[in-house]
Amino acid sequence: MTRKALTELIFERRSYLCVGLDAEISKLPPHLLHYEDPVFEFNKQIIDATRDLCVAYKPNLAFYEALGAQGWQTLEKTQAYIGQSHFTIADAKRGDIGNTSGLYAKAFFETLNFDAVTVAPYMGSDSVLPFLAYPGKWVILLALTSNKGSGDFQFTPQEDGQPLFIKVIEKACSWALPEQLMFVVGATHPDAFAAVRRAAPSNFLLVPGVGAQGGDLESLSRSGLNADCGMLVNASRSILYAGNGEDFAEKARQEALAIQQQMDKLLDLCQFNNS
Amino acid sequence: MTRKALTELIFERRSYLCVGLDAEISKLPPHLLHYEDPVFEFNKQIIDATRDLCVAYKPNLAFYEALGAQGWQTLEKTQAYIGQSHFTIADAKRGDIGNTSGLYAKAFFETLNFDAVTVAPYMGSDSVLPFLAYPGKWVILLALTSNKGSGDFQFTPQEDGQPLFIKVIEKACSWALPEQLMFVVGATHPDAFAAVRRAAPSNFLLVPGVGAQGGDLESLSRSGLNADCGMLVNASRSILYAGNGEDFAEKARQEALAIQQQMDKLLDLCQFNNS
Repeated sequence: MTRKALTELIFERRSYLCVGLDAEISKLPPHLLHYEDPVFEFNKQIIDATRDLCVAYKPNLAFYEALGAQGWQTLEKTQAYIGQSHFTIADAKRGDIGNTSGLYAKAFFETLNFDAVTVAPYMGSDSVLPFLAYPGKWVILLALTSNKGSGDFQFTPQEDGQPLFIKVIEKACSWALPEQLMFVVGATHPDAFAAVRRAAPSNFLLVPGVGAQGGDLESLSRSGLNADCGMLVNASRSILYAGNGEDFAEKARQEALAIQQQMDKLLDLCQFNNS
Repeated sequence: MTRKALTELIFERRSYLCVGLDAEISKLPPHLLHYEDPVFEFNKQIIDATRDLCVAYKPNLAFYEALGAQGWQTLEKTQAYIGQSHFTIADAKRGDIGNTSGLYAKAFFETLNFDAVTVAPYMGSDSVLPFLAYPGKWVILLALTSNKGSGDFQFTPQEDGQPLFIKVIEKACSWALPEQLMFVVGATHPDAFAAVRRAAPSNFLLVPGVGAQGGDLESLSRSGLNADCGMLVNASRSILYAGNGEDFAEKARQEALAIQQQMDKLLDLCQFNNS
């Protein structure tokens, strides 16, 4: 999906919500456990309940790999079920030497037909570039993650005094245009958002950490939104597990709707230029 | 596998060779393409030809994921075929927020029963710790990778003047004992080996980059070996693709044997203490 198509989707649906499809068997509503593939049934009902309220879906690979080959099949079915109406992100945090990253790109962009994949920056340019060889496909590079351990290396000042996550953003911006490159910036670091926007004024930011992890949507949006919106805000657990009964999908919808309604208002901050 | 068991295996087999099981369909000997699962057949014959010459096998996940759910099944079959006689490494370079890393740990240590998984350090402590919750299982943390892009971030001096890869090693050594923690150090950086050994005198190092990528086994071993051997040296392409005919496995064996014979001599440098 191109940047233009993504931006249009956002302003049509009045939403920059990304729903994280991270189902754990142990947390599923009990009545789903009778299905042959409970995770797929759960995903299907969550997707049906949220399609018009979000612009992106983001399955995290760990949740599928924990189930082995069967989980990988569930992921394939889920991705096919979403179809072309949404921006799809494989939250895989991959990255390897060049020829190997090329195979990851093949896995996510050809075999599974995702629009984007999250990539870890540690191995540098040739671990990232193979993903950029696919026109219309995106790299979403980890810059500042939402977890506590982000403090271990990401904030450490480099020789020029800038923290590592800014160096990652600056280097990566020399590898790719904003048409193919987003950054992961955790909602749990509101103080760093302005610095990220200065380093990457035009790039989309994928923002996890709203909801269960505690980030505040409004204040993040005020510092993160740009003229093209420029943000995808992910919520997983707060939507997926809003209910645990037979009405879990309806509860999930209510939660997603509350977020979408807030986003509808916040999008007015973008001064979107339709031309 | 415990560190003691691994060390004993190394000195029994007189080898610290790890064979990377990274088969690409397009590079397989043509006669294998008639099999129902050509990659598994290839792996099986490579394993049969090298079992007594190596102590570890390391499938890189990208090569399997590129084939989708089918590839994941090939990986499960390959891992089962190796059995308990070797140290098995899932070269996955994973890492995510705590609860998600826990699911990756489940995928590789429970579902697939690997002994070790490679992990990327960028997300810090809570992305690594869930893998350490499995006694007898190992984290192999990326420190200094073999690729050209390693120059982008890994060598950058931090505020104390040390390069990032040394900071990664020092921090990680505060998270885990050498009984569960190895480091990836590329054979393409011989000048950095001594610094790595100073920062991690007791840890095993997993060393990719010998063979196709150009690293020299003898000089690396001279600076990397410690009393317990402390190294696993990986070769993939140079062994897997030593031949491309019906005798590919025999050619692979000859290549592995040449490495093992060199390692047999080099192990005398360890002054191994059997007590």
